[in-house]
Amino acid sequence: MSTAAFEYYRANQQQFLEGLKRLLKIPSISTLPEYRSDVHRAADFIADELRTMGMRLVEVIEGGPDRHPLVYAEWLGAKHKPTLLLYGHYDVQPPDPLEDWTSPPFEPAVRNDNIYARGAVDDKGQTYLLMKAVEGFLRTEGGLPVNLKFLIEGEEEMGGQHIQEYVPKHRDRLKADAAVICDTEMFAPGLPTITTGLRGLVYTELEARGPAHDLHSGVYGGVAPNPLQALAEIISGMKGRDGKIRIPGFYKRVEKPSKKELEAWRHLPFNEKKYLKTEIGSTALTGEKGYSVLERTWARPTFEVHGIRGGFTGEGAKTVIPAVATAKISMRLVPRMDPKEVVRQYTAYVKKLTPRGIQTKVRVLSSAPASVVSTDNRYVKAAAEALSDVFRKKTVYMRSGGSIPIVGILTDHLKIPVVMMGFGLPDDNLHAPNEKFHLPNFYRGIEAVGRYFEILGQE
Amino acid sequence: MSTAAFEYYRANQQQFLEGLKRLLKIPSISTLPEYRSDVHRAADFIADELRTMGMRLVEVIEGGPDRHPLVYAEWLGAKHKPTLLLYGHYDVQPPDPLEDWTSPPFEPAVRNDNIYARGAVDDKGQTYLLMKAVEGFLRTEGGLPVNLKFLIEGEEEMGGQHIQEYVPKHRDRLKADAAVICDTEMFAPGLPTITTGLRGLVYTELEARGPAHDLHSGVYGGVAPNPLQALAEIISGMKGRDGKIRIPGFYKRVEKPSKKELEAWRHLPFNEKKYLKTEIGSTALTGEKGYSVLERTWARPTFEVHGIRGGFTGEGAKTVIPAVATAKISMRLVPRMDPKEVVRQYTAYVKKLTPRGIQTKVRVLSSAPASVVSTDNRYVKAAAEALSDVFRKKTVYMRSGGSIPIVGILTDHLKIPVVMMGFGLPDDNLHAPNEKFHLPNFYRGIEAVGRYFEILGQE
Repeated sequence: MSTAAFEYYRANQQQFLEGLKRLLKIPSISTLPEYRSDVHRAADFIADELRTMGMRLVEVIEGGPDRHPLVYAEWLGAKHKPTLLLYGHYDVQPPDPLEDWTSPPFEPAVRNDNIYARGAVDDKGQTYLLMKAVEGFLRTEGGLPVNLKFLIEGEEEMGGQHIQEYVPKHRDRLKADAAVICDTEMFAPGLPTITTGLRGLVYTELEARGPAHDLHSGVYGGVAPNPLQALAEIISGMKGRDGKIRIPGFYKRVEKPSKKELEAWRHLPFNEKKYLKTEIGSTALTGEKGYSVLERTWARPTFEVHGIRGGFTGEGAKTVIPAVATAKISMRLVPRMDPKEVVRQYTAYVKKLTPRGIQTKVRVLSSAPASVVSTDNRYVKAAAEALSDVFRKKTVYMRSGGSIPIVGILTDHLKIPVVMMGFGLPDDNLHAPNEKFHLPNFYRGIEAVGRYFEILGQE
Repeated sequence: MSTAAFEYYRANQQQFLEGLKRLLKIPSISTLPEYRSDVHRAADFIADELRTMGMRLVEVIEGGPDRHPLVYAEWLGAKHKPTLLLYGHYDVQPPDPLEDWTSPPFEPAVRNDNIYARGAVDDKGQTYLLMKAVEGFLRTEGGLPVNLKFLIEGEEEMGGQHIQEYVPKHRDRLKADAAVICDTEMFAPGLPTITTGLRGLVYTELEARGPAHDLHSGVYGGVAPNPLQALAEIISGMKGRDGKIRIPGFYKRVEKPSKKELEAWRHLPFNEKKYLKTEIGSTALTGEKGYSVLERTWARPTFEVHGIRGGFTGEGAKTVIPAVATAKISMRLVPRMDPKEVVRQYTAYVKKLTPRGIQTKVRVLSSAPASVVSTDNRYVKAAAEALSDVFRKKTVYMRSGGSIPIVGILTDHLKIPVVMMGFGLPDDNLHAPNEKFHLPNFYRGIEAVGRYFEILGQE
């Protein structure tokens, strides 16, 4: 390994941690309009760091009143060497329920070698480690073994509209040999991992309207259509107790993983009992019969309710039949499923299940197809090698049940392989209270990315 | 009619309105702990008025830290005349959703002969009219044609725990020949009405627990039990699309109204089309086949969901599988159904419908049986006469789908007839935004109650 950069990485761990804390303190919740200026502040923070470390052409790209900025930067001084496009996101999920956090979500706290904060691992910590890996070379050697372009977004947690519009219009600027996404996790602690597949997502709001205004359930109970009852009927009609989704045609295009992939998954160190106990914590797992846990979470589509708004949910008793109720519902998609088709199928089935007296409306908040990446190219192989060098273990390939819409966008528009190197752990509480990032993974992640640049530069 | 009291009623309408406005300005929301001191303020307001008008022994009865006060007062100077126990409540429902109010819920506003405020008709306006009817006699004649006891509570909207404990322990103090409850409505504008039956109520919270903490629906969707899905399954399993409640044994004890009562209901001026349009405002009515609208709302039990708490319901997209979700669910009961038995049947069926991986818990927030009142006694007959005298129309008898638990308590413990004279209108938006009280009914209500005293005093 290049001694100078790697010495820098090790000597500056404390400073990296302090910098990350500053970034984590900014409540850049992209989905909540009241945090708009904080989201912008996070973009400026990223841009300032990129400028200070010596990246060129650093730009905060505004997208208008409905968009959060993209941050773009480049360093193209490595002649005849490959060019990588590095992706991350600086926005975060809402932190609620707040009362379940041990320390406040935007006051980063270190406990037991972990840093706890909203965005710690998803994705501020992982975006920041890409930046610090680059900084090591620029500070110690004044240059990099490869050419780099950063494209960092602030809308990943709300659908990524801006980057979806930007990429197709700026193919020349974004031209690269491969993209690196640092927004995934390792299969197990200490096990270097590359993610080769992601599920897609259709996220919707399903609104049900009954009476023209809220009604007293004593006076009108028995004749007034109740939108909450309607949502319960529609939701339970959409997915059976056997975990099968009942939307006609929904499974039609589902592509099964290859035999080779399924075989590799069977060799991953997975203990279902321990998983149930430590990761889920319920009395039993659910889902479709005949599929393993990894298949159900990586290679099967889902239907999930995230919340139901409407009526009275405060303390005590209010006997209301609400005029309107809205459910947040998402579906995860697997390869070959077409988000547009799924929306059509779902909307048609909602109509079919809508009871008399109720009017329903579906709003699509975001949608993205699933993606799978071939492991058979030099950029993935070099990443596997870099990870193995740093973690001193053979790199494994996994899929993820989550969705990173940018993978499909980069694949479609730039026609380049996407390398998903991630350093999160399964118990990092993504999107949940007490989100954390394991600090040894933060530091090793920096080294692994640095090593990756080095390997690609030497080839 | 006694000229002096009735002249006083007519000369003081503006002052009565101003007094009512002062009472309506107090946000005495009994169910929300943060309004505790406002609830007490409303009790003090009532007690002060009762004292000022000349009632004796006026008392604000504290019930300890978990109770809101009762207000008691008496005037027993009419020798050999009957004694009436007058009931009302000074607490109100929460006002949300706030954004749907044309004028703020605790800033009473008069528009088109209506006063708009939370509690306008339920039940501050109707409690206040009882007080003003009494005031008319005390101010002009220094006495009343009958003996009176007031018992006014502040927990009607949260289950009425205090009065339920108080009545059985104070039978001597509350001894009376009949009780008058002014907390119901008229069947139609201008049609004097006595309510002869009320549905009972079991109000519960149904909690469903799945994972130990909130989970990312991408990473865990497909295997993690979702409490919101579980609630949808349980709720839709409890009541069919045909409106039939599926809880085993639920209808077992349901008592049908008598043929005579059903026949009388058929002669009430009811237009289903107009009712659907002006009162419900949905595309269709729902409920059980084979029963008229009046039967479905007055004489059939119900199952209604009032709200579902848990997960994410803010703006935008959050992909969470919540650890816990809670539904507010109530059932209205009809005569002969036993609330305790209903709770047992419901709880057992919840357990039966609870899916794998989910743990459910039922909390009962309040419960009361239904009640029916015989029309065959002098106190009801005198009320019908008084109403007819003032409204110049034949008084009709109806039931109500709502619940006034105190009716059962007074019947059971004091063994006296309960007379429900009410002056609300079907479109008064009880428990909903823009609650109102029609001012001509407020003023005529005062006269009708005064006339009632007079008739009973003359007999």
